[in-house]
Amino acid sequence: MAFVRAYAPGTIANLGPCFDILGMAIKGAGDVVDVALRPEPGVSLLSVSGDDGRLPCESERNTATVAAAAVLRQAGVDMGLDIHLHKGLPLNSGLGSSAASAVAAALATNACLGDALPREELLPACLEAEAIVSGWHADNIAPSLLGGIRLIAGTEAGQIHSLPVPDNLHLALVTPGVDVPTRLAREVLPTHVTLAQMVAQTSAAARLVAALFTADLTVLAQAMEADGVVEPARSGLMPMLPEARLAARAAGGMGLFVSGAGPTLCAVCETEDRAREVVVALRAVYQEADIPCEARATQVDPAGARLL
Amino acid sequence: MAFVRAYAPGTIANLGPCFDILGMAIKGAGDVVDVALRPEPGVSLLSVSGDDGRLPCESERNTATVAAAAVLRQAGVDMGLDIHLHKGLPLNSGLGSSAASAVAAALATNACLGDALPREELLPACLEAEAIVSGWHADNIAPSLLGGIRLIAGTEAGQIHSLPVPDNLHLALVTPGVDVPTRLAREVLPTHVTLAQMVAQTSAAARLVAALFTADLTVLAQAMEADGVVEPARSGLMPMLPEARLAARAAGGMGLFVSGAGPTLCAVCETEDRAREVVVALRAVYQEADIPCEARATQVDPAGARLL
Repeated sequence: MAFVRAYAPGTIANLGPCFDILGMAIKGAGDVVDVALRPEPGVSLLSVSGDDGRLPCESERNTATVAAAAVLRQAGVDMGLDIHLHKGLPLNSGLGSSAASAVAAALATNACLGDALPREELLPACLEAEAIVSGWHADNIAPSLLGGIRLIAGTEAGQIHSLPVPDNLHLALVTPGVDVPTRLAREVLPTHVTLAQMVAQTSAAARLVAALFTADLTVLAQAMEADGVVEPARSGLMPMLPEARLAARAAGGMGLFVSGAGPTLCAVCETEDRAREVVVALRAVYQEADIPCEARATQVDPAGARLL
Repeated sequence: MAFVRAYAPGTIANLGPCFDILGMAIKGAGDVVDVALRPEPGVSLLSVSGDDGRLPCESERNTATVAAAAVLRQAGVDMGLDIHLHKGLPLNSGLGSSAASAVAAALATNACLGDALPREELLPACLEAEAIVSGWHADNIAPSLLGGIRLIAGTEAGQIHSLPVPDNLHLALVTPGVDVPTRLAREVLPTHVTLAQMVAQTSAAARLVAALFTADLTVLAQAMEADGVVEPARSGLMPMLPEARLAARAAGGMGLFVSGAGPTLCAVCETEDRAREVVVALRAVYQEADIPCEARATQVDPAGARLL
């Protein structure tokens, strides 16, 4: 195939206590990448839309082009690529924007090459791209590429475990118009925690995983709110976090946590109607504070990235 | 009922990375308590057998009598008790010996009172007893009382979650004749860990819980061995730990971890025959080192404490 368009969904990483080890793909807005093979080697980013001109267009600094180049290299192909990137996800919002660009580009490039590589073997190329913006983390890459909820024990395909998605898991998302660069969000984290904090965090992570298997949204939401390390350190970076949590609860949400490095917040709800009501409540919190925001109801995307 | 005999099984807590949050009851040796109601208030420990005279007979220092007295108090009964304690579990061995005495005594006392309390309401009395020897921890108490594998999110009944027991989970246990007092085992723990250690520990705990639900013994055993905090700190207290791990693996064991605060070691095996072979291999390690030991193959006890 000479021209391919691929979509990769946004993702929510961390889910409270599962910092750096858990991520889930979500339906709706995502990044779209067009890829066309060309005879001359190299990867050119011809256009980026939807980013208000904020993303770097140099090939070596954009995750889409880095991932595409890595797939070419991995497949041993000596041709080049022209790439157009359409950002559907806001930057620095905690929705895995850089990962989605990389995943869409890797999938499209691989399709151009006649699916030279099995899907899970696109992980290294996507990770290489993610590393240029936020380090070697698969917690956004893996769910965007593979879909569902993924437990990340390492950066190899065999270390990515699929976890069950409760049928009745609905999500209410709100993204305030405030940048939280991933690097800054990492800088505010403590270098050490007490042993008691570690025990509490392992307990919350264990309950969260158990709740996914038993489809117990009450335990799930409680566990997601039981992060005693990362959210407290980052809360200063998220405007209106306590107010949003109260508003979500008052509207029937079961628990609210920070999506990735924030500032997107995510509330767990048990019906689609409830999720829509929580969306309205969350939007009102930011409107009252004169902070622009995007809010929507969504669900876990079981399939992940796909060709369009 | 005027006279009751109850049995409570030994338990394995921690299971590697799930320090202080996970415990499982195991079949076989346990503690047995005889309880007889009497008109005069107070609780008297009339005899203790099987402990080589090492346990305190003062009522306020023995977990069986403390638990029995707490059940009487909780039930609002003004009578007293005579108690005989038969230790089937070795002391300070990492098999929940103090918890089993408390649980057997609480169950027997409650039965004497015509089951005045539902079983899960015996937790506080057992915890009060356990606190006199090792602090407020339910990770041995809960599985001994309730059976199975229990995730402990707190000290109340609603915070004790049951986890599934894989059918093919067999265990090989070895207890070398070396005391590891729980207090000493706690003193050697670090007060702080790095954030990276916390992430690795939550990852291992999450994988361990997922593996119980998917009955994947390979992932389970790997996760149990992935404790990067507690075992490294305590390994100096367990003689022959590296040798035992190698021997268990060579005999077909899938992974080996420290039971509770040790020195008992536990290897995961996928058949009963394999567990017996690993028992032989573990016994040989300690015999070669001239350290007396007890070793046996066992399985998870799904039921927990019971009347005899």
